[in-house]
Amino acid sequence: MDGRYTDCAASMKEKALSSLCTPALVVDVDKVKRNAQRMIERCQNLGVQLRPHMKTHKTLECADIMTGGSRRCIVVSTLAEACFYADHGFDDILYAYSLPFDKVERCADLSERLDLFQILLDHPHALDELKKRPLRDGRLWHVWLKLDCGNGRAGVLHSQPEAIRLAQAIVGTKGVELTGVYAHCGNSYNCRGVEQIQAVAQETTDLTLQFMEKLKASGITCKSSIGSTPSCSHPVKDMGKLSEVHPGNYGFYDVQQSVIGSCTLEEVAVKVLTRVIGHCPHRNQLLIDCGWCGLSLDGAGKLPTGYAVIEGHPDLKLLSMTQEHGRVEPISGPLDYSKFPLGSLLTLIPYHSCATAVMHPVYHVHSEGRLLGKWTPTRGW
Amino acid sequence: MDGRYTDCAASMKEKALSSLCTPALVVDVDKVKRNAQRMIERCQNLGVQLRPHMKTHKTLECADIMTGGSRRCIVVSTLAEACFYADHGFDDILYAYSLPFDKVERCADLSERLDLFQILLDHPHALDELKKRPLRDGRLWHVWLKLDCGNGRAGVLHSQPEAIRLAQAIVGTKGVELTGVYAHCGNSYNCRGVEQIQAVAQETTDLTLQFMEKLKASGITCKSSIGSTPSCSHPVKDMGKLSEVHPGNYGFYDVQQSVIGSCTLEEVAVKVLTRVIGHCPHRNQLLIDCGWCGLSLDGAGKLPTGYAVIEGHPDLKLLSMTQEHGRVEPISGPLDYSKFPLGSLLTLIPYHSCATAVMHPVYHVHSEGRLLGKWTPTRGW
Repeated sequence: MDGRYTDCAASMKEKALSSLCTPALVVDVDKVKRNAQRMIERCQNLGVQLRPHMKTHKTLECADIMTGGSRRCIVVSTLAEACFYADHGFDDILYAYSLPFDKVERCADLSERLDLFQILLDHPHALDELKKRPLRDGRLWHVWLKLDCGNGRAGVLHSQPEAIRLAQAIVGTKGVELTGVYAHCGNSYNCRGVEQIQAVAQETTDLTLQFMEKLKASGITCKSSIGSTPSCSHPVKDMGKLSEVHPGNYGFYDVQQSVIGSCTLEEVAVKVLTRVIGHCPHRNQLLIDCGWCGLSLDGAGKLPTGYAVIEGHPDLKLLSMTQEHGRVEPISGPLDYSKFPLGSLLTLIPYHSCATAVMHPVYHVHSEGRLLGKWTPTRGW
Repeated sequence: MDGRYTDCAASMKEKALSSLCTPALVVDVDKVKRNAQRMIERCQNLGVQLRPHMKTHKTLECADIMTGGSRRCIVVSTLAEACFYADHGFDDILYAYSLPFDKVERCADLSERLDLFQILLDHPHALDELKKRPLRDGRLWHVWLKLDCGNGRAGVLHSQPEAIRLAQAIVGTKGVELTGVYAHCGNSYNCRGVEQIQAVAQETTDLTLQFMEKLKASGITCKSSIGSTPSCSHPVKDMGKLSEVHPGNYGFYDVQQSVIGSCTLEEVAVKVLTRVIGHCPHRNQLLIDCGWCGLSLDGAGKLPTGYAVIEGHPDLKLLSMTQEHGRVEPISGPLDYSKFPLGSLLTLIPYHSCATAVMHPVYHVHSEGRLLGKWTPTRGW
């Protein structure tokens, strides 16, 4: 594992986090490993296959940790991720995004070069696109049907007759295989606490399993998968009746997940280091060197502490950001500037780690504050 | 100019924008050239030196256009930008960011290898940091004093005696030169219309010139610079009394600038191409393949059309986004899906081009819809 860090671990040895120029995204690799191991064990206990989602981190190293080193059975949100992982020896990749018609040829290429590349669709027109591009060497398009079980984004509504008809059409199409039924319970992000999370997990599981029964009644069997970090962090027993689950954010977690109840704040593995670069006593504010370019604008209006939680300073609020500046002020009372000299470090715990990670061209990885090296994510589409 | 496109122009020949996989950031190079040329002429007419800011695009190609090919006299927001431009033959670079103490050594390196690398500070402690690191070969630290003329972010307040005292301290420090006084009128972003923009431009100019007079009275002369895209798009005559101006966004412009009154919507040179990937008649919505990963969350709640303007469809609203999905609905009435088949292209005009550009690892450059190649921005800090 350590051999794959971009930087030579030896040259970084003994370097502390405080040696980094800021803003810097720092990843606590021990926490990532713990979060990943717990998810692996949770799925083993349930008897369900874990297919971790790569969209939060988009790195090889974190993918290794989340797959337990197998480099198999992952899900991605962009074709750029799919290609990146395929180019680095990963296989059994599910591109879980309603088949974009402009990317059929690139999907065909991956289907023809990998052992198992899987796509997803939710409309008969997408099936028409596949028919126009039969795969070479007798290979099959491996297709998951995207089902909307209440999330309200992509997918055929589980209750609509079109859903069964589309499954039948996939099964009836030469050169195409119905691999499974896929539902994302992103509506679990509205939950607060384990009870609400498990209610959404149960409902999504029930609706998916009911759909599988309807398929079975029409003579169709295939896999099933649901997922989201909240539901898989607090799974319900019936999720063991599914074939797979596909959470992703849990490797890093974030403040949002702690507010939902998926994790504690201590389990969040990714933070942004920033430094004080200005004192503004006439506004009772500090300036820090992290703006939205280093944190993202995700989480606006969601937290009493503003755009992030400032570690060790629950009395401070990240009030606003411009591209490279953040304005910090006390939630109440006057700021004690002697505690925050110019150049001193602050640590931001991001509201949404998916959104924060995407702002950083490299992640600085550490164990107990000692830098181990860098992870370099892929970007683009 | 064309020789510097990353891709071979010949191989891209005849390719239309519609050949791009989406989401894709597309730059109309003719509009960039027009926007840049107008700013150059505006400054020539005023008799003030233009020092264009690179923070919006962070590319060599756009920097060439904005500097009229001189590769001299630019301003940057990060040290990564400074190094990127220095590594590619640019010089006379101003790193317009209150000196971060963790980056003094890197600033010293640039000061020692460029003809003219300039920094900025707003606190006596920053001057102490410079004293600790005298430059080699008798070189001077070229320092701008950052003044806050009502913007309310970084800078010494123009009205405070500390401002003059800091200028005097800079002048009195061996190995350090007071190059100029720098004010950013970001408060012009609150304006609506030319009259309000010019009121802020006039006020910032007046306060800066008054400060220059005070400096002169204490025997100090140096340059002066103010800037923001609104104020420099509609300058007041007195700005000709300044040494420099430093706008940046104007190369691209965006919806925000059109709302402020800096430009028309037709002058916006950067857009995001996206495709329809879902029909959701039960929600009266479309799904598009551009989420916040391709657009940013900047502009939330600012426009009746949501997070962007959808070109040619003033009746549509980009209601919400997740990482890779956007939800589009009509502002009123039912959606006519026959107008938006799956796979069809939509064009988003971004609210804030600085925020949108940073989400894209490459920009696709076109002239009248014919692709010319790619520009690759620098990232990080």
